[in-house]
Amino acid sequence: MSGNLRIVLIAPRNPNNIGAAARAMSNFGFFDLHVVNPYQVAFREARSAVGAASLLASAQEFTGVADAVADCSLVVGTTALGHRAMQHPLLRLDRGARRIRQRLLSGNIALLFGSEKFGLSNADLSHCHWLLHIPTREEHLSMNLGQAVAVCLYELARGGKPSPVLIPRGPATSTQCERLTLLLHDALHASGYLQEPGPAAEQKLRRLVRRLRLDQQDAELWLGMVRQILWKMKMPPKAG
Amino acid sequence: MSGNLRIVLIAPRNPNNIGAAARAMSNFGFFDLHVVNPYQVAFREARSAVGAASLLASAQEFTGVADAVADCSLVVGTTALGHRAMQHPLLRLDRGARRIRQRLLSGNIALLFGSEKFGLSNADLSHCHWLLHIPTREEHLSMNLGQAVAVCLYELARGGKPSPVLIPRGPATSTQCERLTLLLHDALHASGYLQEPGPAAEQKLRRLVRRLRLDQQDAELWLGMVRQILWKMKMPPKAG
Repeated sequence: MSGNLRIVLIAPRNPNNIGAAARAMSNFGFFDLHVVNPYQVAFREARSAVGAASLLASAQEFTGVADAVADCSLVVGTTALGHRAMQHPLLRLDRGARRIRQRLLSGNIALLFGSEKFGLSNADLSHCHWLLHIPTREEHLSMNLGQAVAVCLYELARGGKPSPVLIPRGPATSTQCERLTLLLHDALHASGYLQEPGPAAEQKLRRLVRRLRLDQQDAELWLGMVRQILWKMKMPPKAG
Repeated sequence: MSGNLRIVLIAPRNPNNIGAAARAMSNFGFFDLHVVNPYQVAFREARSAVGAASLLASAQEFTGVADAVADCSLVVGTTALGHRAMQHPLLRLDRGARRIRQRLLSGNIALLFGSEKFGLSNADLSHCHWLLHIPTREEHLSMNLGQAVAVCLYELARGGKPSPVLIPRGPATSTQCERLTLLLHDALHASGYLQEPGPAAEQKLRRLVRRLRLDQQDAELWLGMVRQILWKMKMPPKAG
């Protein structure tokens, strides 16, 4: 999927945001960065492009949006909304990302981000087929440029392979739970916590131990600990 | 939903990343920021907190993780993976976020981010119930701190309000877990099980206790039991 989604930063002011965008691209597997009229020409040295220096070095520079998106069959603008009468269809990120993923099968796509201060201009917007927005809070719509790029690419990259939940160790056996229950019973009795030892107390402790949902290794650990504690309490006092 | 999800930044080096985290929090409607041992003390002036200056100003500062998460019933760490043998269950962001949204109905939750350079330490991880990771590219796993916070909060804010699940009793607070950890440490030392008491042993026990996922009532039960056992072991032997 990746490879023909292009990130186009238009008139970015802060080189560190360009570097951060490059880093997020590399994190999520997108490598085609175009920059239009950057405010500082020396953006390629941005220290924020941690791990993405080569991506930043290979970014292409343009003086106009049209050239930067010339070979793209779909151009999508990003907007924080809130201040502009929309002349474009507007899609929320999750939905827009689905559409972009589908369209990537049939051609290059450009995703445009405007400058930190002003966003995309009307001239920039005129190149766009539709607009994408990240659902932020009404009272604070505008995101940092590097963060907005990261969130968009996270959403675009999602839906790859689901990773299984790692549960490295199997659950404790009933035998282990039972042993722990009885040891605990004896230890609590020896300590004076349990005044009336016996089946009723054992049942209560059995339930308590079951609720721990121990795995096998942890069960062995707890058995060892309680065994030692019990031994210590039962040791005859040293001869005075 | 928001209000009791806390972002905890541990030993962040770059004030601009703290400011960027604050901005993303404000964008997505989360307002509780705790900072543990920031590298630069004057982080509150970070210019990157555009629109989130008051959130940054009200961030609380701590010298230890335990204090920063004391009132939280669930502590989740974030990791880029790749370098550490995992001792915790690991969930991908989309799945972990669903779980966090549900658990927010029954208590405060802390989401921990480690320093830019080293991530969360083993000591930090010992406070965590499970870990969250953003699915980045194998060859470039590590994200910028501010961007990672933004992506996590985007995912957490999506989908609106969670539907309630029945949790009959609230989960144990971090304070309860910490007390139990320290009591257990002392009891194991007194019994001779623990030959070398100290921070390393405490970390191991902290993880062990977290894995029990106690509820509040059971936590009190265990505290009472271990306290009594410890008292018993420390009693002077009877005069013979």
